[in-house]
Amino acid sequence: MSLALKNVKIIGREGRWDVLIEDGKIMRISEEEEAEKVIDCSQKYLSPGFFNTHTHAAMSLLRGVADDRAFWDAWPEIVWPLEENLNAEDVYWGTKLACLEMIKTGTVAFNDMYFFMESAVDAVEDMGMKAVMSYGLIDQNDPDKLEEEIEATKNFVEYAEDSELVEAALGPHAPYTVSKEGLEWCADYAEKNDLLVNIHVGETEKEKKDFGESHEEGFAEYLEKVGLLNDRLIAAHGVWLEKKDMDLFAENGTTISHNPASNMKLAVGKPMDYGTMKKKGVKVTLGTDGCVSNNNLDMLEEAKIAALQQKMPGDATLLDAKECYEMTTKKGAEALRCGSGVIEEGKPADLILIDKGVKGVPTHDIISNLIYSMDSSSITDVVIDGKLVMKDRKVKGEDEIIEKATERAEDLVSGVI
Amino acid sequence: MSLALKNVKIIGREGRWDVLIEDGKIMRISEEEEAEKVIDCSQKYLSPGFFNTHTHAAMSLLRGVADDRAFWDAWPEIVWPLEENLNAEDVYWGTKLACLEMIKTGTVAFNDMYFFMESAVDAVEDMGMKAVMSYGLIDQNDPDKLEEEIEATKNFVEYAEDSELVEAALGPHAPYTVSKEGLEWCADYAEKNDLLVNIHVGETEKEKKDFGESHEEGFAEYLEKVGLLNDRLIAAHGVWLEKKDMDLFAENGTTISHNPASNMKLAVGKPMDYGTMKKKGVKVTLGTDGCVSNNNLDMLEEAKIAALQQKMPGDATLLDAKECYEMTTKKGAEALRCGSGVIEEGKPADLILIDKGVKGVPTHDIISNLIYSMDSSSITDVVIDGKLVMKDRKVKGEDEIIEKATERAEDLVSGVI
Repeated sequence: MSLALKNVKIIGREGRWDVLIEDGKIMRISEEEEAEKVIDCSQKYLSPGFFNTHTHAAMSLLRGVADDRAFWDAWPEIVWPLEENLNAEDVYWGTKLACLEMIKTGTVAFNDMYFFMESAVDAVEDMGMKAVMSYGLIDQNDPDKLEEEIEATKNFVEYAEDSELVEAALGPHAPYTVSKEGLEWCADYAEKNDLLVNIHVGETEKEKKDFGESHEEGFAEYLEKVGLLNDRLIAAHGVWLEKKDMDLFAENGTTISHNPASNMKLAVGKPMDYGTMKKKGVKVTLGTDGCVSNNNLDMLEEAKIAALQQKMPGDATLLDAKECYEMTTKKGAEALRCGSGVIEEGKPADLILIDKGVKGVPTHDIISNLIYSMDSSSITDVVIDGKLVMKDRKVKGEDEIIEKATERAEDLVSGVI
Repeated sequence: MSLALKNVKIIGREGRWDVLIEDGKIMRISEEEEAEKVIDCSQKYLSPGFFNTHTHAAMSLLRGVADDRAFWDAWPEIVWPLEENLNAEDVYWGTKLACLEMIKTGTVAFNDMYFFMESAVDAVEDMGMKAVMSYGLIDQNDPDKLEEEIEATKNFVEYAEDSELVEAALGPHAPYTVSKEGLEWCADYAEKNDLLVNIHVGETEKEKKDFGESHEEGFAEYLEKVGLLNDRLIAAHGVWLEKKDMDLFAENGTTISHNPASNMKLAVGKPMDYGTMKKKGVKVTLGTDGCVSNNNLDMLEEAKIAALQQKMPGDATLLDAKECYEMTTKKGAEALRCGSGVIEEGKPADLILIDKGVKGVPTHDIISNLIYSMDSSSITDVVIDGKLVMKDRKVKGEDEIIEKATERAEDLVSGVI
């Protein structure tokens, strides 16, 4: 069905426009468009939706179970034992809850790593979102376990091939949880199948210290050695990188998914060095991380926190509002190979409509308002792959998702926390 | 008119309750209450509203005019010249816009310092909010100017006396903008009239350095010397305080209004040292600062940023969700002498109703969800002084406020930015 957004202000462009959406694409932007379905946008702004480049979507079920404790304290004691009890049905409803939250906060595509990923793909398909999805491969240096994990990964990639909305990726969890052989297999398989790869690198100081004790190379050299350091790699966190790591990331076109709220809440010790990364030309995007670390998936909130976190040590000009906005839209879309993230004819229609509300008044600068003042409740409608998945803040099946996810979450933690 | 909140979950209390509100107070909490007006709260949580202990409300008109620049760069060049052109009507509509935003984000009372404060009082009265309000006294060491400012201050205090919702306070702007004589006059006048006093202290490193060059004492010693250091003083920022300052603040029961988002955005160099203040027993509350620094007045957002900012350097246990919640409710109310901030029979009814929505699901811990996950759009209803000022997210006169404040703001910046 074709859709016309009538009389809309497009962020970054002068005037008012009609935008025709057809076959999943922005077909035409002109002064007058008609379509089967028409939305009056005279009170609204049009923006690319947001691209969340690091999530563990189904962790939404565990929101708030491990607050106010550091990663190396809370994860081994609370989070990992709870995850042991997860099943496919949990992941289906947890991912659906996460998608619902992401749609309601303006995210159109996300980059996920978790378990029972076939169920996660089903959830994403049912919600009409776009996602890059990876099975979290962890072998703990056990060759038998690696064989199982390779099998699970291959099965998942095959399963996701049928999906038009999901792009399968590989998910070697981290250099400290995956053997060298495991990382090499991932590099090779991803190369042959042109897949993106997700990994966690340099989140905590302990991780860096432990890595230094068992490896001669730095993080980036090691990733290069195992064949992973290229423009298909998205490395989450990157707080504890050295300048030489950043040089190699920049040279190889590798993306960093910066997760400021998660890093701060888990007390990783310092802000990621965005200033140096920017100078060196590292591709930096934004991610929320999972709902135990953050505890939400709200990219507008993440963008404000990112800017504030970078400025605090002393440079108020670092990571300005426009840069934050590009990071959550254009740059995120590039990293996830969505082809969208901008409003141009012929691009995929992954868009949001925004009503400025009270926090967007006055409007001296709409991008400033969006990043520094407004919250995600100002996003009224979401179009993904040309389809209207949120209309006037309503998403199909909302009540059932909340009910089922609540049941699953309560069962999961029952008797544990 | 009496109001009964039926079948509500009260945060921090087991079970479901009916809450009777009459004569501005929480009259009774029991299993069954009836009243002239009844709200079914079976899907809602009841919480004390939020108390914002540092604002310049009418700066809402200047939201976004000086982003991504440090205080000592942007204020002299942009903000102060714009403020030169403010008039009483601007401040009226700017304060109304701020009140509208605060009500919509769950704030019931705020602590303001600005100019044309008679107009600001009118705005607060018209919106039905509570506020502690102070005229920002600045004499720049000019005795003639001080005389004028004393006159303006006295006139304002007299004007505010008639208001039941506004408590007049004094507002010596800062030790660097007010002479010793000015501060002493404020101390004396506040003492005689039992008034709260607002001041800015230790916001930037430059301020501390300049102060050190012109004074023998530290900040707190100086405030003690001029007679201001007591339990009626609310000092905003306190980032660049020494331990000896904190000792004196604690001994004298002086409140710090912590403004983390503003501090970060203006790149003040480091987080306020909450950990040491807590150990020493300094009273710490939360404030948003004005809309040029932040750029909103959203206390839930501020609470999350406060927790994240404190944890980042390395202690994930510092400033936990419950402490943040108390800071925005109970402790804020104490600092502003509102008598509310808790849900108990006989206390003033300054309350909010909350619908957990998607970001509050699952609800392993409602306070965690409130501080770390939900946003202010989950606040559905606001009761101030026993009156329902927001019902189902609607506030009286919203459209007119947005229209008038927009006009005022556009006129103000026209030809300047």
